[in-house]
Amino acid sequence: MSRLSRLSFSAAIIASTLALSPIAAQAQFAKSEDAIKYRQGAFTVLAAHFGRIGAMVNGRVPYDAKVAAENAAVVVAVSALPITAFGPGTDSGREHRAKPEVWRDAAKFKAAADRMTDAIAKLPAAAGDPAALKTAFGAAAASCKGCHDDFRKD
Amino acid sequence: MSRLSRLSFSAAIIASTLALSPIAAQAQFAKSEDAIKYRQGAFTVLAAHFGRIGAMVNGRVPYDAKVAAENAAVVVAVSALPITAFGPGTDSGREHRAKPEVWRDAAKFKAAADRMTDAIAKLPAAAGDPAALKTAFGAAAASCKGCHDDFRKD
Repeated sequence: MSRLSRLSFSAAIIASTLALSPIAAQAQFAKSEDAIKYRQGAFTVLAAHFGRIGAMVNGRVPYDAKVAAENAAVVVAVSALPITAFGPGTDSGREHRAKPEVWRDAAKFKAAADRMTDAIAKLPAAAGDPAALKTAFGAAAASCKGCHDDFRKD
Repeated sequence: MSRLSRLSFSAAIIASTLALSPIAAQAQFAKSEDAIKYRQGAFTVLAAHFGRIGAMVNGRVPYDAKVAAENAAVVVAVSALPITAFGPGTDSGREHRAKPEVWRDAAKFKAAADRMTDAIAKLPAAAGDPAALKTAFGAAAASCKGCHDDFRKD
């Protein structure tokens, strides 16, 4: 397995392990504002690396398979983290844009988050081919937008 | 290789690949405030997972080898990210605590960051043994403090 294949594979292992782990199941934050700050930080990192793939896909920077794969690996690893910080009662103490529906319809929110991580999980395997990357990026971007439309204030 | 061994190994690959990659070498942020927000987000995520290891090491929560390994994997993967967002000119546009020495003595700052990632890279292998984890955590915490003392305002 090449170094980049291992990298992509590795990120998927991190993401899938985290998704099944006690990290997601336990209350991990002492205060609501800590959870909000954490998930905002994770989304910021996620968006930065996802945006770098988008810049390639949309022709704003030259396509580079290695850079695409590295960013995809970070995106996969970080995509598993925000959902761990939307537990009950994590809706106050710091400015945020999550709608009450996040907690009111937690199952629907979890399903939307799973669609995001599932779509993002396809990025590493697609990174080596510009057309495949564009398709995978578009699907992932749609999963982001779908969740934002329902669960994030403008 | 067990699942957790692969997880730890994987995180190390992500960290080492990122450290050597164009992600670190390129100017990645359009605006200074974007770089500041990104590195603050990465540090927030890093601190949350590092703190969960600390809680075990210091007896505030029960030791759990699996949870320790999972948090160590996230810490390793995320530890490679902040240094990519301290490029020249990333010192304004948003409140932050980086001292001017970050840019004035960039080589010393990079060395301090490397000491942090090197110390953190030892956490996954130590996660399976409470005494080894305590030693590795202490060394990593010291590397954080050393950099904060020199390069971060109180």
